[in-house]
Order: sequence, then C-alpha cells, then structure tokens
Amino acid sequence: MGTRLNLGSITLNVEQKGTDQPVVVFLHGITANRRVWDPVIERLATRFTCVSVDQRGHGLSDKPDGGYSDLDYSNDIRLLSERLSPSEGIFVVGHSLGARNAIVAASRFPLSVRGIVAIDFVPFIEDSVFDLLEKRVLAGNRSFSGLEQLTSYLRGRYVNLPEDAIERRAEFGYERNEAGEYAPLASASAMAETVLGLREDLEPYLSGLEVPAVIVRGELSTLVSPEAFSRARSVNSRVVSVVIPSADHYVPEEAPKEISELVGNFVGNCAPETDRILERN
Amino acid sequence: MGTRLNLGSITLNVEQKGTDQPVVVFLHGITANRRVWDPVIERLATRFTCVSVDQRGHGLSDKPDGGYSDLDYSNDIRLLSERLSPSEGIFVVGHSLGARNAIVAASRFPLSVRGIVAIDFVPFIEDSVFDLLEKRVLAGNRSFSGLEQLTSYLRGRYVNLPEDAIERRAEFGYERNEAGEYAPLASASAMAETVLGLREDLEPYLSGLEVPAVIVRGELSTLVSPEAFSRARSVNSRVVSVVIPSADHYVPEEAPKEISELVGNFVGNCAPETDRILERN
Repeated sequence: MGTRLNLGSITLNVEQKGTDQPVVVFLHGITANRRVWDPVIERLATRFTCVSVDQRGHGLSDKPDGGYSDLDYSNDIRLLSERLSPSEGIFVVGHSLGARNAIVAASRFPLSVRGIVAIDFVPFIEDSVFDLLEKRVLAGNRSFSGLEQLTSYLRGRYVNLPEDAIERRAEFGYERNEAGEYAPLASASAMAETVLGLREDLEPYLSGLEVPAVIVRGELSTLVSPEAFSRARSVNSRVVSVVIPSADHYVPEEAPKEISELVGNFVGNCAPETDRILERN
Repeated sequence: MGTRLNLGSITLNVEQKGTDQPVVVFLHGITANRRVWDPVIERLATRFTCVSVDQRGHGLSDKPDGGYSDLDYSNDIRLLSERLSPSEGIFVVGHSLGARNAIVAASRFPLSVRGIVAIDFVPFIEDSVFDLLEKRVLAGNRSFSGLEQLTSYLRGRYVNLPEDAIERRAEFGYERNEAGEYAPLASASAMAETVLGLREDLEPYLSGLEVPAVIVRGELSTLVSPEAFSRARSVNSRVVSVVIPSADHYVPEEAPKEISELVGNFVGNCAPETDRILERN
C-alpha cells in the first residue's frame, strides 16, 4: 500500500524498497501511479534505495483542487529530496509527466537532484500531439461495472503492454466507488489541469540542465516524434540520448529489463563517486 | 446483413443503398467492416447509389487462406466496377486499407474507377509507424467472454470514437464462436498478411494517378504524419488534399458529416458531367 509521507505542503503516498545508497525516486506518467515501476524496482532494489511515488493528484496521494503546473510538481520533488536524502540529493527517474517533472526539478534544484533519467517526454512535442494526448487523457475518466470490463478497456487502451502491466494498472489505478464501480484513482480535474500544463515550454529547463541526464525515447512512440527527440538532443550537448527498440510510449512497462539496466548503469556511474557526466553514446 | 455478391474469383458481402447514379463504393480499414460507413452513407444515399463492401478477409466476405496483397484487393475493385457500373465505372471512397486499395485500383484500372477519395493512408508512411500498426493489428486478434468486455475493449482501443461507432464495431465486427465468445470476424491470418502488404511501395500508384482524387488526413492522425502527407501531395499535382480538424486516424467514424459533405461535393462535381479535376484547395 505504501506510506503516507507528509511533506508539509502536501502528503504523498510513497514506498521504499532497498536500503543501499544512493536514493532513486521513480515518477510515473499522467493518470498512472507508482506501481507501474514495480518490475523496474524489483531489479534495482538490491543496489539502491528505490522510492516510488504517487505524484500529486494521482494514486493514493493528496489531490488538491488546483496546483498541477510544472512548478507544483517539481516543488514536490525538492521536498522529497530534502526528506529522503538531505545531504546527497536524489536521482530521479521519470516517465512522461514524470520525465517532464524530473527535467524541471533538476534544472531548478540542481543541489537536490543529482541526476535524471527522463523517459519519453521532451521539449518540442507538437501541438497536434498534445491535442491527441489531451483527448486520450480526458477519455480515461471512465468507470467500470466490473473488473473484467476494466481489464478489457485497459487492454484496448494500452495495446502493447504485457498482461502483467495491464493487471497492475487495473489493480492499482482504480478504486471501488459508492456505486460499486471501478473508478480511476487519478482525479479528473487534476488530470485536466495537468495535461494542459504539459504544453508549457520545457526547452529552457532542458537547455539549462547542468546535472547528469539521460533522455530516452521509445522507438515507436507517438508522443515523442523522432524530430522532437532530435531537437531536444541538440539543445544540451551534455544530455545523453537512448532509443529503446520496439517500445512505444509506455517504455518502463514494456521494457522493464532495458530500463532497469539503463538506470542501474547511469546511477552506478554517477555514484558513489562525485558527480560526473556519464560518458556514453 | 447485406448481400453475397459472387464475383467469380471471390464472393464479397455488400449492401446497396440509394438508386441514383453514379455508383460510389465504400471501403473500410484493416480489421473493420462495411458498417463503419453507415453514418456517411445515410447522408449520401439520397443522391448516389452507395455500396458498402466487406473487403476480402473481413466481415462476412470470403476469407481465402492467402491473397491479401495490394494487387489482390484492387482486383476485387475492378470486378465490383464491372458488376455494379460496367459502362460508367465507379467512384471509390476508402479509409486506411481501403484508401490504399482505392489508390492502387484507380491507378491500375482508370476505366473502371472514375475517381477516389482516399482517407488517411498515403505513400511515405514511416517504417516505425508500420511497426506500431502491425503490433496494433495483431493485438486485435482477441476474443471476449461478453458484450460488455468487448465494448470496454473497443472504447479503450479507439479512444476518440463516438459511442455509436463503438457499438457498431462491437455489433458488426464480431461473431459468437462455439465457445460462446465474441471473436473477430476479420481473419487473423488474413490480417497478418494484409498488414505486411501495407508496406508495399504506394508512391508509383499515386504519382501515376490520372483520375480525379482527393487525399484526406485526420489532423491528429498518428498513421499519416504531416511529413508523409506533404510528400504525398508533392508527387501528383492533380491530387487535391484536405485535412479534417480534430480527427485522428478514424476519420469516417469520427467526422461522418465532414466526410459525407466532402464525398458529396467531390462526386457531385465529377458526375454526371464528364470527368474533370475537382477545383478545390
């Protein structure tokens, strides 16, 4: 179930696995929850302190009426760092919304964030892609009379996810409401505000980034076009880029082995020695 | 239910609505069936003879073990023309697979096909997009224990379709099998062969096209990128191009009003006078 962690301005639901330093925080995508990282964390908890977080508005965390901009989400990451690793700072691994938040937090709070892996979200995503994402996110605000209907819906919505990831999304992304229906844990109004906020200009944060960073794209992603990824690479020569073959947008759930290896290498190279740029192509 | 029409080499399930000339044939996308055109044909049957067709391997038509190349599908269109309008030829309106088939047929058999509207399929679709389409098509070969599960799946798979289109896909795209499950009418092996065939080079057919043609893109389509559409426009200056706002790939089901107006104007301008290029931007 995780632990409710009171950060002062907000209480987030988190879970820690592993005890070895450094601390690595995992941030899910919009409408999802911390459990999407289970197969990745399972592989990394023997090496690092892995903390999965339900971001604000999602899962079992607080869902304030407003406050879902890039600044709000990244403020939470700074508070998490102060709580979890006040002297060393944390690594942040984010997917989609979580990647956006990782980039913003690392740029604003370089003493709190030691390094990031940002998966399938970059600056320069096209307006038409955001239009489609917005439709998709809003369409997800739907309840189901039974678990079978819910699971069927998720299989259709995420056609490339393995069955274990589908079941995880069904089990941990919904709750039974008063009518006995399965309703999304993610707050509908929070999702609407969050998806609008994803359009905010991310370029200055990425170009100004000074901590080690890897950006990752799913080869078949329809959110991050090859062009947007290429432009993103060009704004900061220190950022390493990786493409995961055969994966679409949902890279951590589709390719947990590849992502855990990538994160393991990245964090292992950056720590425990003093921070240095990962040398990798 | 439609009518079984024996064309010699194959028997296709078709339905005719309306009696006024000319004849307009409607071709669905891969894994779909002729009923996706219902809302479009409803609007056009007062003006034209509208014929919706389950293409080979789909719906209630024959499903031979092999023979799903662009040549096979376009041969069927020539046979349909000879049967339905042997002296005048037919207009063909196709979506996705149907658009590919319309382009190939119009190029190969310009005396059988008077003009085409090709919706959201062009040459120059990127390999990575075909990879994703292939995954998506193969993932659709799935049965359901009940109608509610099926409908939920379709809502997830086609997030932008209106509810009436979802219900139409559930009702007309599946049949109860011996186990009582809802199984796809589209043949799994035919779909696998068909989706491979979609990668065949379409450029020579479009560039050589001499009959009036409109190509249409959904503004939010992830199958036809803006770049592919732009390149397709450039290979044949006589081809008219139209973008439908707010629609993604499934344009006929998402925007039946816009598509029926477009088809009505196009066919109305081309016929009953002698063929001429539609003047339109």
